[in-house]
Amino acid sequence: MTAKIARFLDEVRPVTPCVVVDLDIVRENYQGLRRWLPLAQVYYAVKANPAPEIVRMLVGEGSSFDCASRGEIDLCLNNGARADKLSFGNTIKKKSDIAYAYEKGVRLYAFDSLAELEKLADVAPGSKVFCRILMTCEGAEWPLSRKFGCEIDMAKDLLVKARELGMDPYGVSFHVGSQQTDLRQWDIAVGKAAMLFTALDEAGIELKMMNLGGGFPAQYRTDVPAVELYADAMMTAMTNHFGNALPAMIIEPGRSLVGDAGILETEVVLISQKGYDDDTRWVYLDVGKFGGLAETMDEAIKYRIQTPHDGGSTAPVILAGPTCDSADILYEKAGYEMPVNLQVGDKVRILSTGAYTTSYSAVNFNGFAPLKAYFI
Amino acid sequence: MTAKIARFLDEVRPVTPCVVVDLDIVRENYQGLRRWLPLAQVYYAVKANPAPEIVRMLVGEGSSFDCASRGEIDLCLNNGARADKLSFGNTIKKKSDIAYAYEKGVRLYAFDSLAELEKLADVAPGSKVFCRILMTCEGAEWPLSRKFGCEIDMAKDLLVKARELGMDPYGVSFHVGSQQTDLRQWDIAVGKAAMLFTALDEAGIELKMMNLGGGFPAQYRTDVPAVELYADAMMTAMTNHFGNALPAMIIEPGRSLVGDAGILETEVVLISQKGYDDDTRWVYLDVGKFGGLAETMDEAIKYRIQTPHDGGSTAPVILAGPTCDSADILYEKAGYEMPVNLQVGDKVRILSTGAYTTSYSAVNFNGFAPLKAYFI
Repeated sequence: MTAKIARFLDEVRPVTPCVVVDLDIVRENYQGLRRWLPLAQVYYAVKANPAPEIVRMLVGEGSSFDCASRGEIDLCLNNGARADKLSFGNTIKKKSDIAYAYEKGVRLYAFDSLAELEKLADVAPGSKVFCRILMTCEGAEWPLSRKFGCEIDMAKDLLVKARELGMDPYGVSFHVGSQQTDLRQWDIAVGKAAMLFTALDEAGIELKMMNLGGGFPAQYRTDVPAVELYADAMMTAMTNHFGNALPAMIIEPGRSLVGDAGILETEVVLISQKGYDDDTRWVYLDVGKFGGLAETMDEAIKYRIQTPHDGGSTAPVILAGPTCDSADILYEKAGYEMPVNLQVGDKVRILSTGAYTTSYSAVNFNGFAPLKAYFI
Repeated sequence: MTAKIARFLDEVRPVTPCVVVDLDIVRENYQGLRRWLPLAQVYYAVKANPAPEIVRMLVGEGSSFDCASRGEIDLCLNNGARADKLSFGNTIKKKSDIAYAYEKGVRLYAFDSLAELEKLADVAPGSKVFCRILMTCEGAEWPLSRKFGCEIDMAKDLLVKARELGMDPYGVSFHVGSQQTDLRQWDIAVGKAAMLFTALDEAGIELKMMNLGGGFPAQYRTDVPAVELYADAMMTAMTNHFGNALPAMIIEPGRSLVGDAGILETEVVLISQKGYDDDTRWVYLDVGKFGGLAETMDEAIKYRIQTPHDGGSTAPVILAGPTCDSADILYEKAGYEMPVNLQVGDKVRILSTGAYTTSYSAVNFNGFAPLKAYFI
């Protein structure tokens, strides 16, 4: 909770629920990453928070941008980013959207399959392409599936094929999982990617770029290592496996830039019990799983929560959202406690909600408006 | 797939993804319920699909409306519904929203706790209130938690308290779970609710209304009983437990009115494999979990899917959405198969997507626009 956000909430008293993002914190986080990883080019993962205010500020700082869609490309271009600062980083793209991006000047694309490579060769000829490889990393709080990436041996063949198709086989990307807290995962991942560099070198292709993805954390309920330690783990991994022949490096932070910069203010709508033999306290907030807190799915992301009564005695609660959907429960098993004298009408603040909240919120579910956001 | 929808898709060729809802089917479903359950007043669960077109048509048919929020109340009033046809059916309401509804003329409210009853007594004096009781029903495809309702003995005390507070203790509601396929659940539920009528009668309070909730199904992958059989199960349960002293009856269908009336047209964006030793086919569509198919959460709702190659040989697939979110997978374990000659660019139709799709879709996740809908 920054002083600036506290002042805003006190003075403006916005209607809840709403998120307030302190742009100074986003800037500091960006500058911190630049300081700790000076060799890496930062591509902000726009999906984490696609606010024009954030994009404009980061354009001013010299950031590049990792875009998931045509919509995000337009957002960046409309807010001052140059096309040569954009990466179309989604491995799943419509051909028409690739053509659109190419026409706008985007020349850097992700892929992980033959079909995608063929689309790229067709409508984005000569562009730089990087192949995403599969990782099976442990330690990430947000689940990582096999949805993105391919096996190393397939990646090798695809990058060779890329050159045959007239593309520029530029590099390799991986992702260790969002909110990754096990720093050893970078050494494993970089080692795997480095093998690919070697294999392609033997095939006469010199890859030039390593995309280390995201995975830097925000501060939720569990303590996380400092960003410096992440940077250190990455650079150690890179020098371990590449010596002083380091390729260009890209990182794609999203959560770590904007997560901690946001506070979600919400109101306690109801506190109740279900029966005389069941003293579980249900606390219903005016924001829930469909109103911006989608990352509480399976109780994956566990936010820190502040109430006006902190410091007094607490008791267990089940925290739920305001909709008529029985699945709209935030925390039931994660062991949340709240003050015993919490009252209906109290304002409650959910910390580190700057990432993956506003844009996740449903357009009109149960007649509730999407989560409102302020950027200050 | 109705002829009207097929013609619309062929002639208009709308940009995908989009949902097309045939209003004639919604009307037929409404009339069917009226025919099979003539004693029950139909309160359409607006949250299932809050399209003004649907509300207007149902106003014309004489329907009442179950509203989850102030937003849904405004929607109904703005589209011709009279306030005395509305129920504020969410048990979790801000006091300011109750006051707003009361001011607009709404006089029927749900509750399941003392705190909610006290809010109602304060700002909606004299209104009819019904208490939702907890059910632990088996057989529903969409998970039913303990989020709504209270135990019977608490419900009894709350309804007595309601009269003390100057409210009209009007009735009881329950919900057997959305997409409930075990028809015996209604007998269990009505039996439980009937006990409450008796208990209150002994306390000198005559309840006048039984709200049987929703639970009527749409047609997903698993076969479901016909609506007539649901109606029959309900009426049998009512006469079993109330004889010919039947209270007024309310039902709150949502899914069953609009689900089967909608078709979602989507495009195959990518088909790929992850490695040479893993022949799993990944099929990526231009709609996913955050673009309207939220009910595929934990693979709960299993939609039927049509492709242009149906009838030929099929093979297993993992179906996923287009976003960069690794959790955006529709079906991985549910055993979906698709034609072996499915192609990138093919249009695929997801059936029975008229309910809980459009309003669930994220406002701008990954830069993708919310699901577009047409009502014809």
